[in-house]
Amino acid sequence: MKPIHVGLLGIGTVGGGTFTVLERNADEIARRAGRPIRIDVVADTNLELARKVTGGRGRFGGHCRLTDDAFSVVGDPGVDIVVELIGGCGIARDLVLEAIAKGKHVVTANKALLARHGNEIFGAAQRRGVAVGFEAAVAGGIPIIKALREGLTANRIEWIAGIINGTTNFILSEMRGKGWSFADALAEAQRQGYAEADPTFDVEGIDAAHKVTIMSAIAFGHAMRFDDAYIEGINRLESIDIKYAEQLGYRIKLLGITRRTREGIELRVHPTLIPAKRLIANVEGAMNAVLVKGDAVGATLYYGKGAGAEPTASAVIADLVDVARMLTADPEHRVPYLAFQPEALVELPILPIAEVVTSYYLRMRVDDRPGVLADITRILADHQISIDAMIQREPDENEERTDIIMLTHETREKNVDGAIARIEQLPVLTGGITRLRMEGLL
Amino acid sequence: MKPIHVGLLGIGTVGGGTFTVLERNADEIARRAGRPIRIDVVADTNLELARKVTGGRGRFGGHCRLTDDAFSVVGDPGVDIVVELIGGCGIARDLVLEAIAKGKHVVTANKALLARHGNEIFGAAQRRGVAVGFEAAVAGGIPIIKALREGLTANRIEWIAGIINGTTNFILSEMRGKGWSFADALAEAQRQGYAEADPTFDVEGIDAAHKVTIMSAIAFGHAMRFDDAYIEGINRLESIDIKYAEQLGYRIKLLGITRRTREGIELRVHPTLIPAKRLIANVEGAMNAVLVKGDAVGATLYYGKGAGAEPTASAVIADLVDVARMLTADPEHRVPYLAFQPEALVELPILPIAEVVTSYYLRMRVDDRPGVLADITRILADHQISIDAMIQREPDENEERTDIIMLTHETREKNVDGAIARIEQLPVLTGGITRLRMEGLL
Repeated sequence: MKPIHVGLLGIGTVGGGTFTVLERNADEIARRAGRPIRIDVVADTNLELARKVTGGRGRFGGHCRLTDDAFSVVGDPGVDIVVELIGGCGIARDLVLEAIAKGKHVVTANKALLARHGNEIFGAAQRRGVAVGFEAAVAGGIPIIKALREGLTANRIEWIAGIINGTTNFILSEMRGKGWSFADALAEAQRQGYAEADPTFDVEGIDAAHKVTIMSAIAFGHAMRFDDAYIEGINRLESIDIKYAEQLGYRIKLLGITRRTREGIELRVHPTLIPAKRLIANVEGAMNAVLVKGDAVGATLYYGKGAGAEPTASAVIADLVDVARMLTADPEHRVPYLAFQPEALVELPILPIAEVVTSYYLRMRVDDRPGVLADITRILADHQISIDAMIQREPDENEERTDIIMLTHETREKNVDGAIARIEQLPVLTGGITRLRMEGLL
Repeated sequence: MKPIHVGLLGIGTVGGGTFTVLERNADEIARRAGRPIRIDVVADTNLELARKVTGGRGRFGGHCRLTDDAFSVVGDPGVDIVVELIGGCGIARDLVLEAIAKGKHVVTANKALLARHGNEIFGAAQRRGVAVGFEAAVAGGIPIIKALREGLTANRIEWIAGIINGTTNFILSEMRGKGWSFADALAEAQRQGYAEADPTFDVEGIDAAHKVTIMSAIAFGHAMRFDDAYIEGINRLESIDIKYAEQLGYRIKLLGITRRTREGIELRVHPTLIPAKRLIANVEGAMNAVLVKGDAVGATLYYGKGAGAEPTASAVIADLVDVARMLTADPEHRVPYLAFQPEALVELPILPIAEVVTSYYLRMRVDDRPGVLADITRILADHQISIDAMIQREPDENEERTDIIMLTHETREKNVDGAIARIEQLPVLTGGITRLRMEGLL
């Protein structure tokens, strides 16, 4: 099948991630999209960087051209989709509008551009009949735009509240965890690469306001209204208030909130106390999470990495696959039933449970006397099972037996079963061994 | 615009919810879908119930016909989409295959049917060129199928782990929270309507296995392999193990897990220890959550209600909107940029922050002497602000001032601003008042 031709504008962090993931997962992506998706041309003012990231002629079958003239990409008749990853509202706006005018589909991660000029851009795209994908503009790799535009369409959305700026969430986590001042936590965030040298857009809430402006429009069906958003950042937040909030059972998060009320739409960004027991209150570090309340579905939460090269690339490429599927299949077959094209389904062996490798919890009741533990651990060692943690309960008074609980490192299930069968033959054991599986989920 | 005509098979819990939500949100849904979606005919063996739920001729403009012959719905030339909410693998399978044969698009919540007969059903649908929507089959209202099929297409999925059965999660929450046995917690779940009279499918893990079978196929691109899934329920779980796990820093959840390994695919359902600090470990009661690990995006989590009339209806209707959009618009305009059709966008006032109603956290430093609190609370009362909680710190030795922290009930922001301005004039106050907003997020 003929590849989809992509022109990439900007090869910084997200552009580089997009290039890398699109190449690394080319096969998997083509099996889903129905045809290959190929970056044919990359535009960046820094050609040196572009050369370094794209690795020169060897990548994408030697087809990837580099240029410092982004307008030449937008005007290239061979390009099907323009991916704008330059950012800001200057040249990015001109390029996106020009791409639309030339009939190109556009994918962008540019929240500032959409929050401020989305009405103009979508109007132009509607007239020209091109798609504009912007999953990457809000909450990085979390498919929240798709959830709002397609997944929750049954609902009258009541409100959205999101941790949609990783920099500020990292700073707030540090302030709470270490009792630091805002200034110290900001410095740490800068040291670790979570905050930029000029952190204004993040810490003053402007970035979050761009994102909640976009979510408000698609939740309630109104135009972008960034200029009417209320914006308050975390830069004047004192750690004493984080401490008092904690004593009262609350955490402070920078939330982007939009809510439908009888009198109008609330659209606001500010530090917010939320009950500590809420799942979203426990979103720490640079992670993002968006809570959406619909009248039918109730509250749903979407959580993941909101920034970074590959998480954001994940969203950019999802938009590319959407466009590729649209350009490839009949509408009825746009999304394959099983996500992959029928002819791209593969036979994969399903592992018998005995072959699964995971960790285990083992509980056994044994006589409380010397040598018991030595016998048990010897059998485990014989089966290549190593122990990660153990509790041996002190026996109650007048009791001669005790519970031993062990957590193992990863091992193959049949090893554990073999060890259990042998341990259960020891005369010191009362009853069988309870075995449960464990997962670290990392 | 001509309505989309839907034939609904089965008017039980989810069918009733679908009917109710589709009617209640008819306007909102049509603004998103591009045309009205109307249930024209409902089939159920219990006509009495169907009459009660649909409210007779008055609903959907008096157009809704009732019948006890589901095959007549499938064969009705006026029906565009058949919604199958009967469940099971008997007549439901015949009806779905017959609907496909007649060229109808199908939406179903039937996980058992898809896990066991999905390969046959999708094959038939592919040949006939019809869509089969099944968002409601996994995790109720959470749009996890859309996330996997469309939102995460850039990724090589590494694994999925989900709490995808609300009944068992409710039982496990009760066992942990109250120290109850499985039997007692099950009885409570039955009393509260979270477990059925015959809870076998839920507590033995079969329902979860159906769902993880479906997720595995769409994550890794293989056929449905329900018969190869390893299934272990919670029915033999002892509360002592929940207690020991807790002491070791773990929670026990019934997880559906599928993982890609070098040797093959793991596909398994069993009680699992997971670190208590993981977000998913804190999913309590009948809620569902699915954790997906992709190579680019990292871990993303999707959380919400996994069952119930309206949450499941939310997913059914999202599928209906997907089909309606496909039947209505050019591919480029299938999903409107702002989720609602351009001509359906409305002007909504954005509330000035002074008009927002929320709760507040107030911190002030005051002289530690009689009457201060009376003065402050009098001013708050004058502004119709009532206090929800308060801390007055005991002053340190040799200190004459103390911090007062108050949490207010909901009130309009301008009232709070007015009260603050007056309190700040009190001579007992040192410095200004720190004011933060609070949200309960319920």
